[in-house]
Amino acid sequence: MRIVSLAGGIGGARFLRGLRAAAPESEITVIGNTGDDITLFGLRVCPDLDTVMYTLGGGIDEAQGWGRAGDTRTVKDELAAYGVEPQWFGLGDKDIATHIVRTQMLNAGYPLSAVTEALCERWRPGVRLLPMTDDRAETHVVIEDDGGRRAIHFQEWWVRLRASVPAHRIALVGADDAKPAPGVLEAIEAADVVVLPPSNPVVSIGTILQIPGIRSALEAKAVVGVSPIIGGAPVRGMADACLAAVGVETSAQGVLELYGSRLLDGWLVAEQDAGAALDGVRVRAVPLLMSDLAATTAIARAALELVR
Amino acid sequence: MRIVSLAGGIGGARFLRGLRAAAPESEITVIGNTGDDITLFGLRVCPDLDTVMYTLGGGIDEAQGWGRAGDTRTVKDELAAYGVEPQWFGLGDKDIATHIVRTQMLNAGYPLSAVTEALCERWRPGVRLLPMTDDRAETHVVIEDDGGRRAIHFQEWWVRLRASVPAHRIALVGADDAKPAPGVLEAIEAADVVVLPPSNPVVSIGTILQIPGIRSALEAKAVVGVSPIIGGAPVRGMADACLAAVGVETSAQGVLELYGSRLLDGWLVAEQDAGAALDGVRVRAVPLLMSDLAATTAIARAALELVR
Repeated sequence: MRIVSLAGGIGGARFLRGLRAAAPESEITVIGNTGDDITLFGLRVCPDLDTVMYTLGGGIDEAQGWGRAGDTRTVKDELAAYGVEPQWFGLGDKDIATHIVRTQMLNAGYPLSAVTEALCERWRPGVRLLPMTDDRAETHVVIEDDGGRRAIHFQEWWVRLRASVPAHRIALVGADDAKPAPGVLEAIEAADVVVLPPSNPVVSIGTILQIPGIRSALEAKAVVGVSPIIGGAPVRGMADACLAAVGVETSAQGVLELYGSRLLDGWLVAEQDAGAALDGVRVRAVPLLMSDLAATTAIARAALELVR
Repeated sequence: MRIVSLAGGIGGARFLRGLRAAAPESEITVIGNTGDDITLFGLRVCPDLDTVMYTLGGGIDEAQGWGRAGDTRTVKDELAAYGVEPQWFGLGDKDIATHIVRTQMLNAGYPLSAVTEALCERWRPGVRLLPMTDDRAETHVVIEDDGGRRAIHFQEWWVRLRASVPAHRIALVGADDAKPAPGVLEAIEAADVVVLPPSNPVVSIGTILQIPGIRSALEAKAVVGVSPIIGGAPVRGMADACLAAVGVETSAQGVLELYGSRLLDGWLVAEQDAGAALDGVRVRAVPLLMSDLAATTAIARAALELVR
């Protein structure tokens, strides 16, 4: 079986571990969100791609959900001692090596997809990991503060402000001119089933869907989504702040309608959200907490069954 | 008093500590060698400038003589885990932060002199530290191995090969088009005395002298040199390998003749080298081992006295 999965960061990466276990004989292609990518101190950081790569490759900081296990902050502390900004972004020493290798390859002319493939030669995540695009398309958030309305990088809103300031608008700057990375449309075309993990529906999955050509390619396929909302609250993270920005209720039903029936064929929700319904979408309710690998595998298996 | 000192790495930096102590009321400008600079993993590394900055700023690894005190090698180990080359250059985590800040500023368009000044705002070395040039002028070494004669970067010869392969030629590539960094000629012009520390006479001092305009500016000044050779052997380092490459005997007399009487007015040698002599150069013999700060200060004081 050929499976395509879109993925954001922590939630997506954890779901993918279950998906890999649920379909060990399958060929899984993961299309990763790169809207969160940011250049810090001249280093190109791809948080979601790295979270997927580290999680599936066994290098993730399990407790934190992102970054490298057993990492230190020597370089970050030294950068702070030089007084350079920003200081609010967490960069571990081991993690920085990844960004150094990536930046050097990008500066040498390799596209991000080739760089990601090279990094994965070390991590062997057991899936084919593709960035959604090799082009620069960055998520910016319009906020209002003392200085009036202004757009800031997603990471500044998410990490520095912890999404505590309301977002008036969330935009993927550069989306119109971005093309899917090599292999993305081909993988979708060849897929037997497409799975949307319980990643953030606005700034993770929603971002990937904005790259021209990806949504329409997915609409022709059997697509099953796993709700990132359980009983009115995000499974983890701050998806509610993002949903509010796009005027969508934080509920399994709200996200179901956001994705819509042209995209979705199946929608897996938690038992307390069993009432969610949309014409043309098969809904099934199961225990949806990814408490361990067995539970996550069961969720992934239920998702696959829903559209096969 | 206004003092200008040229400087290479470890030996030069240690001498400068003594010079600063010997002339605490003086304004000292240090013109640092940048011929050893190298770009590693996309990061611009300036070993000699950093050694001077860390040594005078209290951040040096005293035992090693270069790099930061108490540094770790997490990033370097991770880069090796990715299989990227070269792996023979020592890069500590704390040290890497310096290179990240430098590289980011250089890429933003600041010249190396401005970057060095910015880095020194943290380290407060107590001297004005100027790179010899803002232009790219890199020391390359012509060696002969299985592949025939070829030129390699100085650091590859010095660090990877430990200067164990004979150098047929040492050349500062780009020297002809390099200009002294802003402030260099002005500092020499205004100097009451110029001191050449016991740095490598070929690849440290010799390199600085190759930047057009610097040697002639120095020739008009009272210049005193401290011999880097004691009794036929370098005080430290592998200066003998460099001297052999330019056909100069490894002796206080050899280096005296290499610098010559147009440049030198005074030449400070070790007691066993008291016989060194050259017309027009005042020679004095003193204990020349920089065993501690007091000994180094005495050497610096003797050097200053020789030409005042």
